[in-house]
Amino acid sequence: MIDNSYYGQDGHGPYELINIGDLELEEGDTIKACKLAVATFGKLDAAKDNAILVPTWYSGTNKIIEQVLIGESHALDPRKYFIIVCNQIGNGLSTSPHSSDDPANFPKVRIGDDVRAQHRLVTKTYGLSSLALVVGGSMGAQQTYEWAVRYPDMVKRAAPIAGTAKNTEHDFIFTETLNEALTSDPGWDGGRYAQSSDVAAGLKRQAKLWTVMGWSTEFFKEGRHRALGFADMRTFVDEFMAGYFAPMDANDLLAMGWKWQRGDVSRMTNGDLRAALGRIKAKTFVMPISHDMFFPPSDCQAEWRLIPEAEFRPIQSIDGHLALFGADPGAIAQIDKHLNDLLAWAT
Amino acid sequence: MIDNSYYGQDGHGPYELINIGDLELEEGDTIKACKLAVATFGKLDAAKDNAILVPTWYSGTNKIIEQVLIGESHALDPRKYFIIVCNQIGNGLSTSPHSSDDPANFPKVRIGDDVRAQHRLVTKTYGLSSLALVVGGSMGAQQTYEWAVRYPDMVKRAAPIAGTAKNTEHDFIFTETLNEALTSDPGWDGGRYAQSSDVAAGLKRQAKLWTVMGWSTEFFKEGRHRALGFADMRTFVDEFMAGYFAPMDANDLLAMGWKWQRGDVSRMTNGDLRAALGRIKAKTFVMPISHDMFFPPSDCQAEWRLIPEAEFRPIQSIDGHLALFGADPGAIAQIDKHLNDLLAWAT
Repeated sequence: MIDNSYYGQDGHGPYELINIGDLELEEGDTIKACKLAVATFGKLDAAKDNAILVPTWYSGTNKIIEQVLIGESHALDPRKYFIIVCNQIGNGLSTSPHSSDDPANFPKVRIGDDVRAQHRLVTKTYGLSSLALVVGGSMGAQQTYEWAVRYPDMVKRAAPIAGTAKNTEHDFIFTETLNEALTSDPGWDGGRYAQSSDVAAGLKRQAKLWTVMGWSTEFFKEGRHRALGFADMRTFVDEFMAGYFAPMDANDLLAMGWKWQRGDVSRMTNGDLRAALGRIKAKTFVMPISHDMFFPPSDCQAEWRLIPEAEFRPIQSIDGHLALFGADPGAIAQIDKHLNDLLAWAT
Repeated sequence: MIDNSYYGQDGHGPYELINIGDLELEEGDTIKACKLAVATFGKLDAAKDNAILVPTWYSGTNKIIEQVLIGESHALDPRKYFIIVCNQIGNGLSTSPHSSDDPANFPKVRIGDDVRAQHRLVTKTYGLSSLALVVGGSMGAQQTYEWAVRYPDMVKRAAPIAGTAKNTEHDFIFTETLNEALTSDPGWDGGRYAQSSDVAAGLKRQAKLWTVMGWSTEFFKEGRHRALGFADMRTFVDEFMAGYFAPMDANDLLAMGWKWQRGDVSRMTNGDLRAALGRIKAKTFVMPISHDMFFPPSDCQAEWRLIPEAEFRPIQSIDGHLALFGADPGAIAQIDKHLNDLLAWAT
């Protein structure tokens, strides 16, 4: 257990911690009394057919999903839908290394483990037998694909944004550089640091890698970092990017990084990606972001071809992958438009 | 002085070490008896108007320039031209940190210092008053731009490949991540390591960053790394990429990295890039590489607009920035075609 006040109701609430029981993991270990941090919006209707599930991305929590995507002005409108934002295992709010008994030896968790945990949550806790939509960005897209392949009869619509069903070799190595930014910090000490600030140098190096790959060259050329209120690149890196990662827990980030690297729906079909994506029954909108440097549209398009009922709906934004942060209102407007189209599609 | 057998005639020769005298640096220090490692090909004609200068890129030497770009089948044909490949200061062959008395305190060298040193070389050693062409890739492109702006009457033709005249903020931070991969290694020890292998972990992390940004997602998606003879991504990273950087000297790389970050021809015109590029009299072919992630075509195009006699000649290659390595024969064929067109242009 490593004290970290960043993760809690103050910064990320309100959310509910729901014990879904013991979770057997694909790698063989078991998480005892696994807890999922869940924030819900709106009400489940009598027919129980208006539920939307939103899994979270790397380093993100329910809070940014709420701030960027949920509200009466958005497609995810709580007046119409019962929206369940479920924090992924290891993100600091759900069961995670930093809050466990032995943070340095937290078991390896895969995307499939998260999705089976979420399945238990929505079926047992909320009594759902279908989801009107599963939508998520980045690692949330990985979970969205996993849902659509693993539970094809349950997922009516799917919207993976800026992510892939099977992680690429290129992205695997990028994520390795993120992980190694942390593990190469002597302060990390094999995961046995006393507090997050012991890994400050590693967290800052990770923030710089995100600066390089997370946005785009056009973002900086057009001075978007200055438009967001930062005097220059140095301030943007030191205050915004490094400030974002500084309070986070290194072992939590590493747990998510390991999981991200290995996202792959074809694990369910003996490595046959075509067979895996062919299982999907959901109407699916594949939504890459035009300037995304690690989940580029071409990678997403190659998967889109293999999904029976899919439309390719790219988002134009020079904010690149981090358009998910919501700093480009135009990108969010495009996401809302596509999600509205998708939700209007009759199942 | 740090022993390093990687840098020498065995691996990179033949080249000549030419003492150009003391070099006063823009940052105020002086390199005493500065030595430039120079390889030449072909013969200078009586009119002394067939000389081509090729400066080197980050981590590169005259050897890869020779292997990839020079020969009877290439535009840089030694039967027609007197080709001077000049190793940049700090690259391990020319005066560099590792071979200096105090490697940890080597003075800061700028692109402008290299170009003034090269100017002394070509005017004093070879008695030249004009260069038929200056051509270079990456940091070689930075030096090419510096030449064309600093000595506009001397440079008849210029071909900056995969590089910019003024480095972008985005690229500055990318290069910072390369530098910090080395400086964050405890074995680097402020530059006071005993041998290159003391910084092995940092060099390997740098190799991974190059893997992510140096090629392109399409390169890996199309299996180019396997086509080059590596069984899988791990082998490609561990053997090819890490193997490339492993023998290099960290302080030498850092000297080049510092220089690369600050490449900016507008230093000669009080920060006015339009005025600087407006000085160029050379016929200039601006040659970005289509899939280059850190000198993308859009950045190069923005500079091309400001050069009086310039053509925009992008190279198509999914090898990205590292198409410079010459593993995609199609990319080299395009470069040769453009250089032939440029060399045919009457001055």
